[in-house]
Parts: sequence; structure tokens; C-alpha cells
Amino acid sequence: MKRKHRRPQTHFLTVEKTDDNEFYHQPGELPGTINVRANSPLPQIRLIDYNELDYVDKSNISADECEDFLDTHSVSWVDVQGLGSLETLQTLGNVFKLHHLVLEDIVNMSERPKIEEYEEQLVIIARMVVPKDFTCGFYSEQVSFVLGEHYLLTVQEEPEYDCFEPVRHRIKNSKGVIRKRGADYLAYALLDAVIDGFFPVLEKYGERIEELEEEVIAKPTRETLRNIYQVRRELLQLRRAIWPQRDAINSLIRDSSDLISEEVRFHLRDCYDHTVQVMDMVETYRELGAGLMDVYMSAVSNKMNEIMKLLTVISAIFIPLTFIAGVYGMNFNTEKSPHNMPELNWYWGYPLCLAVMGTIALTLLFIFWRYGWLENPSSIKKMK
Amino acid sequence: MKRKHRRPQTHFLTVEKTDDNEFYHQPGELPGTINVRANSPLPQIRLIDYNELDYVDKSNISADECEDFLDTHSVSWVDVQGLGSLETLQTLGNVFKLHHLVLEDIVNMSERPKIEEYEEQLVIIARMVVPKDFTCGFYSEQVSFVLGEHYLLTVQEEPEYDCFEPVRHRIKNSKGVIRKRGADYLAYALLDAVIDGFFPVLEKYGERIEELEEEVIAKPTRETLRNIYQVRRELLQLRRAIWPQRDAINSLIRDSSDLISEEVRFHLRDCYDHTVQVMDMVETYRELGAGLMDVYMSAVSNKMNEIMKLLTVISAIFIPLTFIAGVYGMNFNTEKSPHNMPELNWYWGYPLCLAVMGTIALTLLFIFWRYGWLENPSSIKKMK
Amino acid sequence: MKRKHRRPQTHFLTVEKTDDNEFYHQPGELPGTINVRANSPLPQIRLIDYNELDYVDKSNISADECEDFLDTHSVSWVDVQGLGSLETLQTLGNVFKLHHLVLEDIVNMSERPKIEEYEEQLVIIARMVVPKDFTCGFYSEQVSFVLGEHYLLTVQEEPEYDCFEPVRHRIKNSKGVIRKRGADYLAYALLDAVIDGFFPVLEKYGERIEELEEEVIAKPTRETLRNIYQVRRELLQLRRAIWPQRDAINSLIRDSSDLISEEVRFHLRDCYDHTVQVMDMVETYRELGAGLMDVYMSAVSNKMNEIMKLLTVISAIFIPLTFIAGVYGMNFNTEKSPHNMPELNWYWGYPLCLAVMGTIALTLLFIFWRYGWLENPSSIKKMK
Amino acid sequence: MKRKHRRPQTHFLTVEKTDDNEFYHQPGELPGTINVRANSPLPQIRLIDYNELDYVDKSNISADECEDFLDTHSVSWVDVQGLGSLETLQTLGNVFKLHHLVLEDIVNMSERPKIEEYEEQLVIIARMVVPKDFTCGFYSEQVSFVLGEHYLLTVQEEPEYDCFEPVRHRIKNSKGVIRKRGADYLAYALLDAVIDGFFPVLEKYGERIEELEEEVIAKPTRETLRNIYQVRRELLQLRRAIWPQRDAINSLIRDSSDLISEEVRFHLRDCYDHTVQVMDMVETYRELGAGLMDVYMSAVSNKMNEIMKLLTVISAIFIPLTFIAGVYGMNFNTEKSPHNMPELNWYWGYPLCLAVMGTIALTLLFIFWRYGWLENPSSIKKMK
Amino acid sequence: MKRKHRRPQTHFLTVEKTDDNEFYHQPGELPGTINVRANSPLPQIRLIDYNELDYVDKSNISADECEDFLDTHSVSWVDVQGLGSLETLQTLGNVFKLHHLVLEDIVNMSERPKIEEYEEQLVIIARMVVPKDFTCGFYSEQVSFVLGEHYLLTVQEEPEYDCFEPVRHRIKNSKGVIRKRGADYLAYALLDAVIDGFFPVLEKYGERIEELEEEVIAKPTRETLRNIYQVRRELLQLRRAIWPQRDAINSLIRDSSDLISEEVRFHLRDCYDHTVQVMDMVETYRELGAGLMDVYMSAVSNKMNEIMKLLTVISAIFIPLTFIAGVYGMNFNTEKSPHNMPELNWYWGYPLCLAVMGTIALTLLFIFWRYGWLENPSSIKKMK
Repeated sequence: MKRKHRRPQTHFLTVEKTDDNEFYHQPGELPGTINVRANSPLPQIRLIDYNELDYVDKSNISADECEDFLDTHSVSWVDVQGLGSLETLQTLGNVFKLHHLVLEDIVNMSERPKIEEYEEQLVIIARMVVPKDFTCGFYSEQVSFVLGEHYLLTVQEEPEYDCFEPVRHRIKNSKGVIRKRGADYLAYALLDAVIDGFFPVLEKYGERIEELEEEVIAKPTRETLRNIYQVRRELLQLRRAIWPQRDAINSLIRDSSDLISEEVRFHLRDCYDHTVQVMDMVETYRELGAGLMDVYMSAVSNKMNEIMKLLTVISAIFIPLTFIAGVYGMNFNTEKSPHNMPELNWYWGYPLCLAVMGTIALTLLFIFWRYGWLENPSSIKKMK
Repeated sequence: MKRKHRRPQTHFLTVEKTDDNEFYHQPGELPGTINVRANSPLPQIRLIDYNELDYVDKSNISADECEDFLDTHSVSWVDVQGLGSLETLQTLGNVFKLHHLVLEDIVNMSERPKIEEYEEQLVIIARMVVPKDFTCGFYSEQVSFVLGEHYLLTVQEEPEYDCFEPVRHRIKNSKGVIRKRGADYLAYALLDAVIDGFFPVLEKYGERIEELEEEVIAKPTRETLRNIYQVRRELLQLRRAIWPQRDAINSLIRDSSDLISEEVRFHLRDCYDHTVQVMDMVETYRELGAGLMDVYMSAVSNKMNEIMKLLTVISAIFIPLTFIAGVYGMNFNTEKSPHNMPELNWYWGYPLCLAVMGTIALTLLFIFWRYGWLENPSSIKKMK
Repeated sequence: MKRKHRRPQTHFLTVEKTDDNEFYHQPGELPGTINVRANSPLPQIRLIDYNELDYVDKSNISADECEDFLDTHSVSWVDVQGLGSLETLQTLGNVFKLHHLVLEDIVNMSERPKIEEYEEQLVIIARMVVPKDFTCGFYSEQVSFVLGEHYLLTVQEEPEYDCFEPVRHRIKNSKGVIRKRGADYLAYALLDAVIDGFFPVLEKYGERIEELEEEVIAKPTRETLRNIYQVRRELLQLRRAIWPQRDAINSLIRDSSDLISEEVRFHLRDCYDHTVQVMDMVETYRELGAGLMDVYMSAVSNKMNEIMKLLTVISAIFIPLTFIAGVYGMNFNTEKSPHNMPELNWYWGYPLCLAVMGTIALTLLFIFWRYGWLENPSSIKKMK
Repeated sequence: MKRKHRRPQTHFLTVEKTDDNEFYHQPGELPGTINVRANSPLPQIRLIDYNELDYVDKSNISADECEDFLDTHSVSWVDVQGLGSLETLQTLGNVFKLHHLVLEDIVNMSERPKIEEYEEQLVIIARMVVPKDFTCGFYSEQVSFVLGEHYLLTVQEEPEYDCFEPVRHRIKNSKGVIRKRGADYLAYALLDAVIDGFFPVLEKYGERIEELEEEVIAKPTRETLRNIYQVRRELLQLRRAIWPQRDAINSLIRDSSDLISEEVRFHLRDCYDHTVQVMDMVETYRELGAGLMDVYMSAVSNKMNEIMKLLTVISAIFIPLTFIAGVYGMNFNTEKSPHNMPELNWYWGYPLCLAVMGTIALTLLFIFWRYGWLENPSSIKKMK
Repeated sequence: MKRKHRRPQTHFLTVEKTDDNEFYHQPGELPGTINVRANSPLPQIRLIDYNELDYVDKSNISADECEDFLDTHSVSWVDVQGLGSLETLQTLGNVFKLHHLVLEDIVNMSERPKIEEYEEQLVIIARMVVPKDFTCGFYSEQVSFVLGEHYLLTVQEEPEYDCFEPVRHRIKNSKGVIRKRGADYLAYALLDAVIDGFFPVLEKYGERIEELEEEVIAKPTRETLRNIYQVRRELLQLRRAIWPQRDAINSLIRDSSDLISEEVRFHLRDCYDHTVQVMDMVETYRELGAGLMDVYMSAVSNKMNEIMKLLTVISAIFIPLTFIAGVYGMNFNTEKSPHNMPELNWYWGYPLCLAVMGTIALTLLFIFWRYGWLENPSSIKKMK
């Protein structure tokens, strides 16, 4: 009975799909149901257990093995990457005594960022972004944190994208104060890494918009239009990722959970400031994107004006000349009357006629030049 | 005296009417008046009475028969589908001791989603959507919940559309914890099913917008315009359905009614999260829809530029040639003067003339090619 | 010294003026000044005095006559229609002991809907709308309520428009509970009638927008543009009427005046819901109206594309042919050289020439047909 | 060192400058510095001192002379018009014991409307508008009120614009209750006069927009565009003037200053209502203005369609005819072959040719007439 | 490992880069890390220590030297300009006992304006703007304030831009009350200078928009489009700078820090008013900028209409004439039939033909003139 629905997606067809074909509840489905995605990689569990003096780092351990570390007073960080095995997830749920709704939130990768307080745990759902290598897009992935008194469980969907490495490095090398603090500080450090991950993505969009600005005024093509629309839709996705994150961090600062110490709360204010900064940038870029659309429309109209001017200049010059040629192509019988096209028999008739034509053409050209219609022929070249 | 007004509707003429020609109060009409719609199907009442051990399922019973079940401690779910009989509705009103305003709200299918607390009852008005089979539209229907201590009355307008089946299935098969919980949990489960019903509808709009994106850039026709407008207006309707729903669920979580247990309130937070997610998506799609309109307008202008370029190229090439032909069609008398069109008598006159014409044509073609006006003749084909 | 200012109006010139050339204070004028409009109809006073058993209905009585009824415990409803006599209004003011600012608010028909609490009175300023018969517009009129413990004074500007008749009918026929309740219930019933009066007006706009949708895509004329703009401006007026009404009813529900019983407050929540529904609809229609403008603009551009295509097809076909005809109209002397237009002397010269022309014409037609430019000639007809 | 900066202005070049080239602080300048404008008129001080029985009115007195009146229990209204003398202003500051920041606010005419409470004084900064005589614009001027227990100081910039005359008249003639109340009532009466002064200005804009509506649909010129933009920018200025005024009056109602009696606070609610009404109107006009811009754009496109239709009709009719004429202008030798243009030698050749041409022309005209392209030739006239 | 990211920038390519290529955290980087920019100028420290009687001013002292002054009761203002030396910054951090997050905020120049309260310090991050000399742009620079009980540390990035000079001058010359007040008053005076620095920048934009208004209606070029877009994006940056500043100053007024005296809080209200005024102006200019874009689009369409009219007039006049000439260029044999083009043999044939042509041309010219198409030929000149 459990047919899996794809969550509505909003990709541009010509773009590589961002990897967020997440699940959502089937209407009426049992709340708390855990749907394991078929093509999801198998979970890899890595445990880092540390205090000021000791440091243990175990990769690819089983979910059960974690249990021994949870009750010690050292900080135990269990990092799970990949959601492909229902069993492992359920074992994890048992080991960490997760509420069934929490387990569902962790596995259902389309949750909005949020904070949920449980009796002895604090659950943080966040969203991480990683820039793609060559194009402008970004990969987006849910990161879930379960913070207990002496442990932190983090769950990511794809092992491929990871922004926690620098923190691991700091722990290993005893950099900063991280080894002296508790699991709450670790959670803050990782959350900070997640938020800071938005900046390189935004930087790419900043550059992209700059390029589009240049392009849209100089040479607006259909491709430009497509690109502007794509940037706007991707910024919309970014915005959907960052807005609830701000609310989540804000409630983290204000909430009265005992799991977070005053000092970490203080550091979270810094993290909150960065989130607001990201939001500011996203909004600014969105406004610039909307402005670009207006500029595009105006630039296309400008281009049309240039085309029409060219057509008008050509028509205005040749149509009168063709008319004159037409007149002297008439067959009125010059022999029947001296009034019938006597010009045809003049000695200087033809040269005079050509001279008149030339004069008209030059006069018109001069007028158009004076009115500035001929000023920038090179600009026509630019307008592909 | 009771003339029935149709509520103002906003369909697109060419679209099948969505089924919401609801009633509204006639100005000055007695509040609490129950208007039965002429073409509404007759009410079918189905009673499911269950506790952890027992399970009773009776279809097509009469309103009176329900009464016996209401006072028992097992959960009694009375599901009414169809509003075509005034009598039945009034009997129901008596059986459930409904305030006359509540009965009016239930029957008047155009109410905004809301929560109303009565002394021993909690009334929830919600709105359910069901995707249409082939087209993009959706059917929308009011679902009313009356929650008492041991019973739940649900009223739907059309038996045809129903999203409660999975919940019935869960009750029957004792899936999850539903059989162990009270009527408030049942209400939550059904409300959750109603909210989750928005996702497949949104999924369809996501796909639809994707298709329109492709279409609007590649080949914008009048039909595209119609479709964009239609998607935008349907999203407007979706939004009108989901916004008040969020407020209702929020006040359900915050209100202090005894009828809802702490645990269900906790589950409702999950339901609230989904509602916010639906809203997010609707707003995102609405912004994409507005963006599509801009893109459409730009694409049409682009198309016009292509047309104008073609006209200009043709004119620019042939008008000068025609002029030259016109010149040598003049009848200046070559015998009266050696200056009168001596070219006509040259040995190589005609070939030279054709050569000049050909040179001009090729030069112009080269210039236009250099300026990129001829680059994509295939693109003209795309632009129907 | 009392020059009367007209309040700024915003009619569309071609539309019949809606009747709201209200007064406003002259700058610096004595607050509380009562300005009687010259062309206002004379006040007609109707008194309905009732309790559960008795019912008195007196039309066209004088202001003084009302006084006797005010102190009785039966509910006295004094309904004044027309504001043409200063004396009558002042007598009323004395009879009902109105604050001079209240009297001013009642007479000055341009007040925003609002609630004002006085010591023993509650003043409600509301705005009523009545659809016009044939066109889309509506008449708008201020309705003032002064609610005392056992009486209700209602003042309307024009006797012509009235939405209270159904309530009078209910009182007379003892329908519902109205005869058993106090003046506060009467005030609620009338306010409900006022709000419900917005629905038929909105219904008309819904239909109107539907018609415009069809028109704007199929055949956008200048008249369509005018109509869209007019609908938008009238919806703007509707919105200005309904927004403050919502605030007023809301404060009526929340305020702690003793004059309104708990039960009526409960009914007012229903009335509030309807007001919010009206607002929702107005906003939806306004968005649809704005969308229509975009569609109009796109449709006009589409139309222009069709025109340009026609011009381009005609030019593209005939300009080359005319050039060929021009070539063979040249007068190169065939006798001077065998190279000078030998075609002219060919046996099949003319038929061949015609055949070439025909081939070119058909080829071009085929190309244009393939590119879809000729597909819908009937669509040109639609575009008047 | 005190260079004077002009405050950024936003005039339309072709419009008379509205008189608000106010000062602003030079960056880093000593706060509380009083900059006297060079071209400002010399201050004229007028004192009106009254109670229920007595009335003193002294024009052009010196600042010092006011001092005697301030301590009496009668209400002393000192009205200063013109800010051209630093000395006078400083004397005033001493006489009224003004905080140096207050004096700065009064003189710096670009302050936002606001309320400031000092120990024994209440300072109100308001903004007054006066319609210009012929054009649509308005003059805007800051009016400052300093309210003490028994005195009111009002400061205006220009003696030329004044909206206090009716109040002076009421005081002199003992109209209304003004002579029986204190300085707070006087402040209210003047503030009311200031707010009521917005209505005639708005009335002008209402009429202006009506005219533009007519113009924009019937005959959109470049001048119309300029006018719409100008109206929009002036409404933006009006809005900037009225928004903070509302906040100021609101805080005046809510603040707990002893200087304002309950009764006057009650009257201020009326004044607040008018302010909200002004804001409503400004917003409505702004939306109408934005709508006009859309209509303009559409109307210009419509006009272009008409022009293109005319061009297309002319081309479609004459280009084929010219082609036919071109064909029979070819010089194929009729003597060499019976197939070479035998029509030229037919007896009815020429008449037949003309008949064919006429038939084609009439057929095309008929087609265009059927498609409605010729229906309203008069409309072309309208479109200048 | 510490690769430095550039913060996303949003420059227009053709514009000089505004100097804000600030740093941002690398994802996962140790919070509190101080990144010194390579090309940043070396810090120059200037100490001004004053009380009512004494005044010490030392330039280019070392960070350590400041320490002696901090504990005295005179106000010590340490102004640092330039961030090029990590050592100096760390020494400063030690001397002033700065929290490591504060030091990071000071050095990371891309922080949002904000207030942070520490135990014995108040940190204010503000943003200062300086107009560029010739163009419209502005330089923007972060200014950080660390306020202690008897000292103020200010940090600026570039020594080149400085808006504190007038304050230094006031201190030196004992102007105003600054020498009598504490460090909080100094902080206020400097903050006021920072806010007032926005006015000259806005003034420039006001003038710029005025110029663009004139340009966009009279002669809209591609350059105009570029300029409008650029002004809009720069206003967006200004807005991003001023909005958080308002929040910061507001929380400065409301927060209960002991470091700020009541009197200075009072002055800060003035400063807040100026910030709101700046915001008002920025929003007004932004709306004007958006309006300009609309006007531009309309103006370009108007221009196109003018071009199309010219083309249509030329075509409408010459195409019929050319047709007539074509008719009499046909070679029907006049000898075979008296009906074959007898006009060719008329005595007045040719003059009559010319006369007919002239009549047609004049008639058409007259019609176009009547319809106003020829009225403003000079306007074509304006439209480059």
C-alpha cells in the first residue's frame, strides 16, 4: 500500500536536477512512518569521541557499537551519512531513544528547518548547501542534529557532500577551545559551518548576476532570459532554505533548554547574525534579479527600435528613388505631345535624373545622421 | 422568500468548473439558517466505533442510530458524506447537540477554515483538495469536524472525494497507535490526512510549471498565456484554502481546550509544520508563476524581433536591387544623347548589371550574417 | 463662511458617478459642525418597537415622538433615512443625547467604518454596498448605528437603498429568536445584513472578471483595457470599505462594553468570519485583476506579432517577384549584344519567367506554412 | 566652517520647485546647532491671549514681550511665522525655556512629524500642505507646536501659507467651546486644521487622476507619461508627510502626559480618524497611479498595433498590384514567340488588367474590413 | 588551510568597484579567527584624551601606549585606522580586554550593524558612507565602537575616508558640551556624524534621479537604462546599510546598559530620528527608481511608435505612387486596340499623370497632418 510520492519539484528542464527528490507523506499515511529511499546510499557511521585529553575516531562502525560511548562523560559525536537501510536507522533510533516522529523527520529529507525540544534531547533540522562545480546551481541537503547531554547525533543524506571536515580537523588538532567544551559547543560549531556554507554559494550568484548584467544590456539573447529566470528560481530555493533556519536559530537562542549553556547561546548570536546576513544577501540578489528582468525587457525593446530604424532608413531612402525610376519607366508617347515626358529626350536627361536621385539619397542620409539614427552602426553588430 | 445566491466564482471559462458553487447567506437572512442545496447528494452516514479491543463498522445507518454510541467510552466516529437532506441534518444536529450556528457552518460549504470552541465540543472547519485526474485543476471540498469527548463527527460534501480511507484502514487493521488513543487522536489523524492531500496537488502544479517553463521560452503561444494565467489563478485558490488552515491548526495547538490531550497537541505541531511547508510551496509556485508571465512577455518580444529581422533582411536586400532594375527600366532616349543610359547599349551591360546586383545581395547577406541576424534560421521554425 | 468642499473622488469618467460626493471638514472648521447637504432627501423616521409579545411599527413619525419609546424596556429601533434637514437631526441628537462629535460622524457620510464607545452608547459606523442594476458598479452608503440599552438608532443616507427589509420581516413575523433578544442582537442582525450585502456585489465582479478573462485572450480591444482598469478601481473602493469594517467588528468582539451580551458577541464572531471572507475575495479579485492587466499586455503583443507576420509574409513573397519583374523590365538593348537580356527573345521566355515566379512564391508559402506562420488564418479574424 | 547643505530633493525638472529646500545637519556638526537660512523671511510674532471673558490680539511684537503672558492663567498663543533671525529664535528659546534640541528641530524644517515629551512641555512637529493655485502640486511646510500648561507656541516657516485663520476667527468670535478650554484644546484645534488641510490637496489629485484616466486611454502622449510620473512622485511626498503624522497623533492619544486632558484626547481620536482617512486616500491614489502606468503602456502598444495595421493594409493592397504592373512592364519580345506576353496584344488586355487589379484590391479591402481592421478609422485620428 | 573567500559582490561591471571586498568566514572555520587582509593599510592609532580642562592628542602611537590612559577618569578616545597588522590588532585586543568574537567582528569588515553588550563594554558596529568625488557611487566602510566606562575605541578600515574630523575639532576647541561629558556622549557624537554622513550621499542620488527623469522622457538611450539600473542597485546597498543601523540605535536607546547615561539616551532619540529619515529617503528614491524603469519602458515604446509612424507615412505615400508609375510602365500594345492604355497617347497624358500623383501625395500628407502624425518632426530629432 505504501506508494511513494515524489515531492513536487521545480527544476528548469535544461538544468541538472538538484538532488532533492525527497519523500513526503502519502495522504492519510501513518504519522511516524519511515520510508527508506531505494537509491539512497547505505548509512556510514563515524564516531568521534573526545574530551580535553583523549580522542577516538572510528569510521564505519555499526549502530550498536555507538551505545557504549553515549553514557561516558566525554563528548560523543556520531555522524551518519546515507539513509539507505531501514534496519540501521531503527537501531539508531533505539540506541538514541528517538521519538518516532523525530526518526521520521530525520529520514524524510524535505522537512523545513526547525527546532524541537524533547525531554532529554534537542532536535535541530537544518539545511546545508554546497555549490556545484561548474554551473551556478547548488546541491541542498538536510542535516539533522540530535543533541543529548554528552552526545551529538548528526545525520546527512549524501556522503558526497559534507561541510564538517574543518570541524573534525579542529577537534583532532585541538584547535580552539572545542576540545574543552561540551556537545552543545560542538553542535554550535557544526551549525556555524552549515550557515557559513551559504556564503560561497551566494558568492557564485553574485558573480553570475554581474555577468548577466553585462550581457543583458550589451547583447540580450534568449539564453540570457533563460539564465535570469533560472537564477531567480534558484534564489527562491535558497530563500526557502534560509528563512526557516533563521527562525530555528532564533528560537534556539531564546528557548530555555538546559542542554545549551549560556556561553554557547552567546556564540549562537553570532551564528544568528550570519544567518540574517545570508538572508539580506538573498533578498538583495532577488531584487537585482527582478530588476534584471525589467532591464531585459527594455533591452529587447531597444533592440527592436534599432531593427526598425534600419528598416525605416532603408525604406525611406530607396522607396522615393524607386518611385522616380518608375516615373521615367512609364511609356507615355513622347511623339504625340511635347508635354509627354520631354525629359526622356533631353540631352542631359539621364545624368540629371541620376543626380536628383543622388541628391535625395544624400539629403535623407544627412537628415538621419543628424537625428542620430546612423550614429552607432557598430551597436547593430552587438545586437545579435 | 429564500432565494439562493451563488457565491461569486472565479473560473476560467474554458476550464471545467471546480465544484465549489457554494451557498452564502442572503443579506439579512436569519443567521443560522440551513440551506440545503438542491443537487447535493443525500447524506450517507457511516459509523466506526472502536477501542483497543473492539471494532464496529456500520455503513448507511440513520442519524438516530448514532445516538446510542455517543455515550460509550469507545471512540465513535460518525462520518457523513453528502448534504442533500434537511431532515437528516437537523436530526444530526439534535443527536450531537450542535449549536445552530455550527450546523449552519457545516452546511454552508464556503466557510473559511477555522476553529471554534463550544462548551463540550470543538468545531474544526477545514478544506480538503483532491487532484483531478487528467488536467491540472483540483476539486476542493469543505470538511467539518465536531470533536466531543468520546466521539468525532466529520461531514463532507461529496461522497466521491474522500481522503480518509487510509485512516479507516489503519483503524481496522490496528495499525499504529490509533486504536489505543481517543477521539482527539483520530481528529488529528484525519486532519493530517487532509493536509497531506495538498502535496499531490502541488506536485502536479510543480510539473505543470516545469512544462510551461520549457514552452514559454521555446515556443510561446496564446495557449501558453492562457495556461500560465490559469495556473496562477488556481494557485491563488489553493492559497486561499491553506492560509486560514494554518491559523486554525496553530490556534488548535495553543488553545487550552481540555478535549485535546498534550500528546495530540504534540503531534499537531508536526501537522502544523506540514501546513507551513504547503504554504511555502504555494508561495514559491506563485512567484514562479509571476516570473513566467514576465518571461512570456519577454519571449513574445523576442519573437517579434525575429520577425522584424526577417522582414528587414528581405527588404534590405531586395529594395536596392529593385531600385537598380527600376533605373534600367527608365525610357530615356539613348539616341538623343550619348549620356542617356549608354549602359543599355554596352556589350556587357546586362551581365554587368546582374553582377552588380549579385554583389550587392551577397555583401548585404554577408553583413547580416556577420551581425548574427542569419545565425539561427531554425529558431524561426521553433517560433510558431 | 461655511463653504462646502467636495471630498476627492475617483470615478472613471465614463462611468455613472457613484453617489459618494460626501462632505468633509473645511480646514480649521469647528469640529462637530453639522453640514446638511443641499440635495439630500428629507429624513424619514420609522420606529419599530417590540418585545416578545408586542410589536409597534410607525412610519414617518417626528423625531420628538421617538422619545416616549426610549425608556421602555421593549426594544426600540429608530431608523432614519435621509439627511436633508438640520432641525430634525438636531432634535434627534437631543432625543438620543448624542455627543456632538457623534452627530457630526453620522451626518458626514465619508467617515471610515469604526466603533466608538460612549458612556451609555456604542456608536458603530459601517458602510453598506448595493449592486447597481445593469452595470458592474455599486452604490455605497454609510450606515450609522447608535446602540443604547433598550434602543437602537440607525441612520442611512438614501431611502432608496436599504438592506434592512429582511430583518424587519423577521421581527414582524417573529422569525428566529430576534423578538426574544435585546437591542444588541438587533444591532448584530442588521450589521450581519450589511456585511452579507457585499456578497452579491462580489458575485457580480466574479462574473465580470470571468467575462474579461475570455475577452482579453480572445479579442483584446481598447474597451477591454478600460473595463479591466475600471474593475480594478472599483475593487479598490470595495477594499477601502471592507478593511476598516473588519477592524471595527473585531474591536466590537474584544471590547468590554456592557451593552453587548456574551451571546451576541458570540454571534459577532460569525459576522467577523464573513467579513474576513469578503476581504479574502476582494484581495483574490484584485490579484486576478492585476494578472489580467499582464495578460492584456501580452495579448496585445501577440496580436502585434500576428500583424507583423502577415506583413512579413506578404512582403517576403511579393518583393522578390517584383524584383524579377523589374529585371525583365530593364531596357538593355538586345540588338547590341547577344548577352543583353537574351531571355527576352527566347521562345519560352515569358512562360518560364512566370513559372520561376510561381515556384518562388509556392516555395516561400511552403516554408512559412512549415514554420507555422500560416496555420491559423482564422485567428487573425478574431483579432479585431 | 558651517557650510550649509541642501537636503536631497526630488523635483521633476519641469515643475516649479516645491519650497522644501530644507537644511540638514552637516556630518559631525554640533548637535543642537541652529542654522538660519539666508533667504528666510524675518520672524513675525503674533500673540493671542484669551480666556472665556478676555481676548488680546497683538501682531508683530518682540519675543521678549511674550514673556509677561506666559505665566498668566489665560491661554497664550504665540504664533511665529518666518525663521530669518537667529537672535529672535534664541530669545524665543530663552523665553519658552526650550531644550536646545527642540530649538534645532523647530528651525531645521526637514524633521519628520513626531511627538517629544519634555518635563513641562510637549513638542509636536507636524507637516502642513497647501494646494498650489493652478497646477496640481502643493506647498509643504513644517509646523511646530510647543505646548505648555497655559501657553502654546507655534512656529511656521512661511507667513504666506497659513491654515490657522479659521481657528483665530473662532477664538475671536467665541465660536464653539474654544474660549472655555485650555491650551491643549487649542493645540488640538490647530492640529485638526493642519490635517484637514490635506483634503483639498487630495481632492485636486483625485480630479487630476480622473483627467489622466480619460487621456491615457483616448490619447496617450509623451506628456501624459510625464504627468502620470509626476502625480506618482507627488503622492509619494504626500505619503511621506502623512505616515509619521499618524504615528505622532497616535502616541499623543496614548501617552500619559498631564498636559493633555481626557476630553482633548477624546477629540484627538477624531483627528486620528481623519489622518487615517487621508492615508487611505493617498494609498488608493498611489495604486490608481501605478495602474495608470500599466494602462499607459498597454495603450501605447494598442496605438502601435493600429499603426502597424495601417501599414500592413497599405502594403498588402499595393504590393501585389505593383507586382502585376511590373509583370506587364517586362520587355519579353512578343514577336519572337506567341507565348511571350500575348496579353499585351489582346484587344481587351489593358482593361482586363485594370479589372483584375481592381478586383484584387477590393477583395483585400473586403477581407480586412471583415476582420475588423478598417472598422474604426476615426480612432486613428484620436491617436495623435 | 586558511584560504580567504571574497564576499559575494554585486558591482556593475562598468562601475569602479566600491571598496567592500570584505572577508567572510570560511565554512567550518574556527569562530573568532582573525583574518588580516593582505592589502589592508597598516593600523594608525591616534589617541585623544580629554576632560573639561586637559586635552592630549597623540598620533601614531603603539597599541601598548594606550594602556596607561584607559584607567584615568578623563575620556580616552583611541581611534584606529587600517587593519593591516595582526599583531597590533591582538595587542589592542589585550589592552582593551576584548572578547575574541568582538575582535573578529571588528576585523571582519562585512558585519551587519548591530549592538552587543558585554560585561563592561558596549560594542557598536556601524556602517559609514562617503560620497565619491565625481560619480554617483559611494564608499562604504565599517566603523566599530567599543565603549567602556572612560574610554572609547573606534576602528575604521581605511584612513582615507573619515567623517570624525568635525568631532575632533569640537573637542579640541571645546565647542559645545562635549568636553564636559563622558565617553558615552563622545560615542553618540561620532555615531551622529556617521548617520549624518548619509545625507550628502542621498543628496547626490536625489540629483541623479532628477537628471535621469529628464533624460528618460526626452531621450531614452541604452545608457539611461544602464544608469537607472545602477542607481537602483546602489540604493539597494544603501538600504542594506541603513536598515540594521536603525535597529541597532533603537536597541541602544531601549537597552538598559549602565554605560549610557539618560541624557545621552535622550540625544540618541534625535540620532534615531535622523536614521529613520534616511530610511524614508532611501525608500522614496527606490520607489522613484522603480517608477523610472516603467517610464523608460513606456518611453522606448513611444519612440518605436514614432519610428513606425515615419515608416508608415513614407510607405503610405510612395507605394501608391509607385504603383501608378508601374501601371504606365506596362507595355500593352496601344496599336492593337484603342482600349490599350490610350492615356499614353493623350496630349496631356504625362502632365495629368503627374498631377494625379501629386494630388494623391498631398491628400495623404494632409490626412496624416490632420491626424497629428506629422506634428512634431523635431521630436524625432530628440529621439536619438
